[in-house]
Amino acid sequence: MYEPPSGPSYVDRAGSPNRLEYTSDRHPRAMLEMMNILRLSHELSDVVLNVGNREAIYAHRVVLSACSPYFRAMFTGELAESRQTEITIRDIDEHAMGLLIDFCYTSKIVIDETNVQTLLPAACLLQLDEIQEKCCEFLKRQLDPSNCLGIRAFADTHSCRELLRVADMFTQHNFQEVMTSEEFLLLPVGQLCDIISSDELNVRSEEQVFSAVMAWVKFSVAERRAYLPQVLQHVRLPLLNPKFLVGTVGSDLLIKSDEACRDLVDEAKNYLLLPQERPLMQGPRTKPRKPIRRGEVLFA
Amino acid sequence: MYEPPSGPSYVDRAGSPNRLEYTSDRHPRAMLEMMNILRLSHELSDVVLNVGNREAIYAHRVVLSACSPYFRAMFTGELAESRQTEITIRDIDEHAMGLLIDFCYTSKIVIDETNVQTLLPAACLLQLDEIQEKCCEFLKRQLDPSNCLGIRAFADTHSCRELLRVADMFTQHNFQEVMTSEEFLLLPVGQLCDIISSDELNVRSEEQVFSAVMAWVKFSVAERRAYLPQVLQHVRLPLLNPKFLVGTVGSDLLIKSDEACRDLVDEAKNYLLLPQERPLMQGPRTKPRKPIRRGEVLFA
Repeated sequence: MYEPPSGPSYVDRAGSPNRLEYTSDRHPRAMLEMMNILRLSHELSDVVLNVGNREAIYAHRVVLSACSPYFRAMFTGELAESRQTEITIRDIDEHAMGLLIDFCYTSKIVIDETNVQTLLPAACLLQLDEIQEKCCEFLKRQLDPSNCLGIRAFADTHSCRELLRVADMFTQHNFQEVMTSEEFLLLPVGQLCDIISSDELNVRSEEQVFSAVMAWVKFSVAERRAYLPQVLQHVRLPLLNPKFLVGTVGSDLLIKSDEACRDLVDEAKNYLLLPQERPLMQGPRTKPRKPIRRGEVLFA
Repeated sequence: MYEPPSGPSYVDRAGSPNRLEYTSDRHPRAMLEMMNILRLSHELSDVVLNVGNREAIYAHRVVLSACSPYFRAMFTGELAESRQTEITIRDIDEHAMGLLIDFCYTSKIVIDETNVQTLLPAACLLQLDEIQEKCCEFLKRQLDPSNCLGIRAFADTHSCRELLRVADMFTQHNFQEVMTSEEFLLLPVGQLCDIISSDELNVRSEEQVFSAVMAWVKFSVAERRAYLPQVLQHVRLPLLNPKFLVGTVGSDLLIKSDEACRDLVDEAKNYLLLPQERPLMQGPRTKPRKPIRRGEVLFA
């Protein structure tokens, strides 16, 4: 039998420490691979998930709980699910659920245009932060003037703050293209106000903002004319040139027929008429827009 | 809602692939950490191991099965253990078991002189190959003329072929020191024969081999004298010088009193007496030893 050596002859041998501290790099991955093999053959499965119409998903509670705070709460808490072996999951897309469980057991996922819309909400619900981040990263790369408003709203709905910030900056920077998109015309009033109230809106002149707003109202005039004063207060009318203010804005019938809109036009006219008094007339609508330069916008 | 964009304006955007293939580097390790937290708080534990007198070990069948073919067979097979929630494990050292279960859940282990002797057999039984390899690596670094025979035997017992090979080479290379060790005098006859029969035994002359053998026999002469012919056949007596052969070997009383030993001495004398006939008298005992040079020995 081997007996630990003693004495200086042993301690002094070069490169012979008397303990070996070992951390395996491959162990966690190798173990996960084996757990996936066990899962695929339904071995030691202690929970079956029914999601939508897809075939049941066999899994292991401890694996799901280790990946997802949602499952951890479900299986370790006081809920009935902690004792059931067959569980029906609602409110999660069945295809997305399959991809997310696969990720838990493989560390791999493919995000694409066809699944990101269901994957992100599902990842949010299961609190798989890593997948949520990757979905946002994917959507950031997809940003385009034709879809940035949709992505912005999607990010807002799912509390993806970083994606919301980037989509918002993208929208402001590309506003001249965005304002011609179908998405723009379909914006809810709140989002429209959010966007056009920004100091960073990248426009050549305030005329463009006015035109965008009027196009939005006229897209569904019966319903939206009531919003005109609310929206128009974010257009910086005092920055328009007098000819456009008088000839286009002041003479528009929708504007003329609304008291609050007329007040806004008056405010702008007064500002333009009395250059010496402008220092006393400063307000949110007299502040020039300061668009951010190109390099600063994307993924900043 | 976000709608996947279409048309060339989207596809053509630089750096905008329409799928993101993601493999998480951190997922397996993060998951293992969480499974360890669950284990330590006994959450979702579905098996309790009783080993020796230590406190019970709470664990998860799927985790143990993913790490160890031994547990996989136990839990997924037809054995009674596959249905029991409390299992008593025999034949494994309780401290070693604790360290190995810790490794399964953490990827970390510390091997030292005090645990390697129980850890290696336990790792062999649980078929934790990675730990078995690391124990062997640790023992390789510990090799010293005072312990190499013990390590060699230990490697043989636990079928660690690579360690056995290295310990064997170490022993042969350092034979002049090894033959003076206590371990050498305690060798079983089979292992002694294995070692001294090697062509690579590093000795200055065959006299050393003879002296080693006689010291081994005389260490427990009553019991071992019967082994003398078996052992002496591996000493290359024809390579001795005539004076040593006649004055020391041939005149030894133990040798003189044994027929088979005398035959071996005669064989050597004849070889030395008839130089012209040596080509016809070649055999295993006339082959000179060819020790391996230093650089080739360790960890080769």
